[in-house]
Amino acid sequence: MSKTKITFLGGLDAIGKNMLVVEHHNSAVIIDCGMSFPDEEMYGVNMVIPSFEYIRKIKQKVKAVFITHGHEDHIGALGYLYREFNFPLYATGITLAFAEGKFAGAQKKELQKQVIASGQVYEFDGLNVEPFDVCHSIPEGVGFIINTPDARIVHTGDFKLDAKPLDGRLTDLDRLRGLNGADVLLCDSTNADQPGWTISENDVGKTFDKLFSKVKGRIIIASFSSNILRMRQVINTAQKYGRRVAILGRSMENNFRIAQDAGFITCPENAVCGIEQAASLPDSKVVVLTTGSQGERMSALTQMARRRYDRMKLKREDTVIISASPIPGNEKDINETVNNLFRIGVRLFYDHVKEIHASGHACAEDIKTLVKAVKPRFFIPVHGEYQHLYANNQNAEAAGVRRANTHIFQNGDQVEVGRSVCRLSGRVYAGPVLLDGNYGADPQEPVFEERHQLSRGGIAVVACVLDRTNKLARPPLVDGSGFLYKKEQEQFLPLFKERIAVLAESLKGSDKEQKLKKELEKFIYDRLRRRPAILVNIIDL
Amino acid sequence: MSKTKITFLGGLDAIGKNMLVVEHHNSAVIIDCGMSFPDEEMYGVNMVIPSFEYIRKIKQKVKAVFITHGHEDHIGALGYLYREFNFPLYATGITLAFAEGKFAGAQKKELQKQVIASGQVYEFDGLNVEPFDVCHSIPEGVGFIINTPDARIVHTGDFKLDAKPLDGRLTDLDRLRGLNGADVLLCDSTNADQPGWTISENDVGKTFDKLFSKVKGRIIIASFSSNILRMRQVINTAQKYGRRVAILGRSMENNFRIAQDAGFITCPENAVCGIEQAASLPDSKVVVLTTGSQGERMSALTQMARRRYDRMKLKREDTVIISASPIPGNEKDINETVNNLFRIGVRLFYDHVKEIHASGHACAEDIKTLVKAVKPRFFIPVHGEYQHLYANNQNAEAAGVRRANTHIFQNGDQVEVGRSVCRLSGRVYAGPVLLDGNYGADPQEPVFEERHQLSRGGIAVVACVLDRTNKLARPPLVDGSGFLYKKEQEQFLPLFKERIAVLAESLKGSDKEQKLKKELEKFIYDRLRRRPAILVNIIDL
Repeated sequence: MSKTKITFLGGLDAIGKNMLVVEHHNSAVIIDCGMSFPDEEMYGVNMVIPSFEYIRKIKQKVKAVFITHGHEDHIGALGYLYREFNFPLYATGITLAFAEGKFAGAQKKELQKQVIASGQVYEFDGLNVEPFDVCHSIPEGVGFIINTPDARIVHTGDFKLDAKPLDGRLTDLDRLRGLNGADVLLCDSTNADQPGWTISENDVGKTFDKLFSKVKGRIIIASFSSNILRMRQVINTAQKYGRRVAILGRSMENNFRIAQDAGFITCPENAVCGIEQAASLPDSKVVVLTTGSQGERMSALTQMARRRYDRMKLKREDTVIISASPIPGNEKDINETVNNLFRIGVRLFYDHVKEIHASGHACAEDIKTLVKAVKPRFFIPVHGEYQHLYANNQNAEAAGVRRANTHIFQNGDQVEVGRSVCRLSGRVYAGPVLLDGNYGADPQEPVFEERHQLSRGGIAVVACVLDRTNKLARPPLVDGSGFLYKKEQEQFLPLFKERIAVLAESLKGSDKEQKLKKELEKFIYDRLRRRPAILVNIIDL
Repeated sequence: MSKTKITFLGGLDAIGKNMLVVEHHNSAVIIDCGMSFPDEEMYGVNMVIPSFEYIRKIKQKVKAVFITHGHEDHIGALGYLYREFNFPLYATGITLAFAEGKFAGAQKKELQKQVIASGQVYEFDGLNVEPFDVCHSIPEGVGFIINTPDARIVHTGDFKLDAKPLDGRLTDLDRLRGLNGADVLLCDSTNADQPGWTISENDVGKTFDKLFSKVKGRIIIASFSSNILRMRQVINTAQKYGRRVAILGRSMENNFRIAQDAGFITCPENAVCGIEQAASLPDSKVVVLTTGSQGERMSALTQMARRRYDRMKLKREDTVIISASPIPGNEKDINETVNNLFRIGVRLFYDHVKEIHASGHACAEDIKTLVKAVKPRFFIPVHGEYQHLYANNQNAEAAGVRRANTHIFQNGDQVEVGRSVCRLSGRVYAGPVLLDGNYGADPQEPVFEERHQLSRGGIAVVACVLDRTNKLARPPLVDGSGFLYKKEQEQFLPLFKERIAVLAESLKGSDKEQKLKKELEKFIYDRLRRRPAILVNIIDL
């Protein structure tokens, strides 16, 4: 029996809230602590995070939190973790910078942080962790090689293969080959169902170059603000063509500063300028780099497309490039922005142009190459919906892993791993925790079903004051929200009040409020064909 | 000046609720009367239809309603139109059958219906209408050639070009060429931004044949229930391979019956069977044709994928084919079904297989071919979002229409058309009308904003009974819906009541309720970081 186990707290049901724990005997390390966005039916929820219930149980064992890279789905829940715990945080320099932006001040004690370097081995009681370089759509991503006396685990983090990455930092297949095999490979599955190879960030650069060489007017580029190397490509291409770059949107501005501080973007001071300054330059000298590639309501591009952005107005002569692909669920919002941009009449390049964006995630052939380098006995796909995990197992099989040794687990699963074992050994509570204001809710809380009903039909609030003879002491009070349309307030409301008055005086017994509610539900449905929530107060004097 | 005008009541802002009016002097015909689905922010709305306000104004002029084909976005609002009006309804046989299904019994008087035939000319005072065959994803689709003394208008309806349609019914380019030109072409834009040619329904048949020849277990096919020819292909292929077809889902069963009655499907009685009967056949003899290709919550496929369908259970050995492409906005629901199907472990063919579905709409090259046949002076793209209309104008230009003669209009626009004119001449109210129960609402009604707030934070309902000395006659009543989570009911509620009691007795002046509400908003936000709706009743004895 192996004493090493992996506990999955997130990342196995959807793309988001990645978090897992590797334990050996009395030691544990947490890998990543990400957030995800709420589904539609999670009314009022701003963010979804993993449950820390299991962390509370083993907190004495936890030696460190290791972070693979600085994307929200890997760092977004750290602020909540550090409100409660004070584990040492291990990450590369820029990842730490992104992470600290998340929870500066949230933690109780001063953060014990450790800048890590690939190739170094970080030793803890009974287990050690060695980061290795991976190439992704944010700088300084790493994967981890985790050794315990019973098992060697390789975790890719998010990765792609790029033969010529802009920062020269390849996914370190040589190091992985040097391991001469591993027991378990945990592998990014986001693009596992996409055949072929992921295109290179370099190809996006070439597309930019081609466009910049032709365009005469202003160029507006929307992209992910964490894609620092994309940002660098925009600035470099702009410089080549004598344009200055105005950076728009809070997260884009923040990340530009982080990237400059960390030395990832080194450009002369006059390479960038403020948006107001850009307005005084000829159009042919201007590039605007902005947020809004996902149609986010409050972003600069969305507002510009709606002609509601004060700091800059788009015009027909502009060229807009959306250098991103839609994150599932955002299609409608992006579509609205695209329609609005066509209304203004700008020249628009978006996802119908192939090499305008490169994904940060490995496609099937990248994955097979990595699997062959690692030569794992067992394969566990992570970071994806079920269909992606399923597709990734097929990649692993194609790369030589025995089908019986490919496994799909779910959040909350505890898996015993070792030289000849990879099996479900237990279950823990893994949430999700739905954050609504100060509250971390369970999805089963009745509040969500109530809000669903309220969103469909609103609420009718009825109050009756009855005197001792069971007569109304005053006319019934009817109030509501989201309940009656304008015309109904004139036409239906008087009838409704009349009906309430009759019913209130005629009802007898102990559960008058419940009885009145039932009668009013029926009355409303018969006349309006709707089922609002109804709240009845009968006040007996 | 031309006396002919077109009024657009729908179809120009999105794919859906197609409706327009062609008028000449004292005559008018309505073309199509469709519905669309509500956007997310239309809380509680089941269906969206065009406004009939303009129809009310010109009802004396309306000679007929002509329908292009039987899809919901062209017939779905007819039931509402016929509650109010009794215009003669002109359509092909199967289109009438689909339409009558929509509003059997809704209309006041008996429906005056006219089965139309392509090539026939239907004459009215001052204008005539000639249907012509178009090929689409539902049988017996037509476009219309509308002649007035001042203008010849061609309206394609929804169409594609298919060189070998299953029913032999080509889009009638010969008839269009025979016109030797037209003044205005109204053209389907749904796929206008897709390059190349739309694939043939025949190719889908070949894909089915290939799959059927290899698969040993059960085959489950999900498709659009109105795609009668797809249904026919499934039945024919099943027969060829000795399988019987069980038809699942209400709309699939209804449309199968309509198609049989209309002679579009002629198969031996034993070609189809009930699902219970299918259960007694060997798996290799069974095909199940079902609804649910869009991940619709209540559909048979969705329920089967969730393992919640009593009439049939899926198993690993099944092969599932989703023979449809996602309608924008349905991606997440379809995705859930796909994940669930992978969980069961069925073999799944869906949109990653190219020729598993053929669109009913013309791509760019189909459109250019049609434009060259019609040779219109003016071009008006219809049936699409702005980006599709925009792309379609480029197709028209490529096919020889002058750029200055391509126009994008919006719902509510009235357009004067004639030999040398196509210009905006007025505006009418075009809705949309949002149907919620018995009410047809304007999108600006405050109900929607209220429901939005309710959906985010629920509502707190507070009632205080004060005696003549301004003291609480009883403890404050606090009720609510979607407001407090479980733990908050123990921890927060007592504090909240205390606060209400203090405030209620201390407040003075006329607008006590408003003041109390403000204070409570602040109290809740400070402690819970949420902003529920708040309703306050102060009852002075």
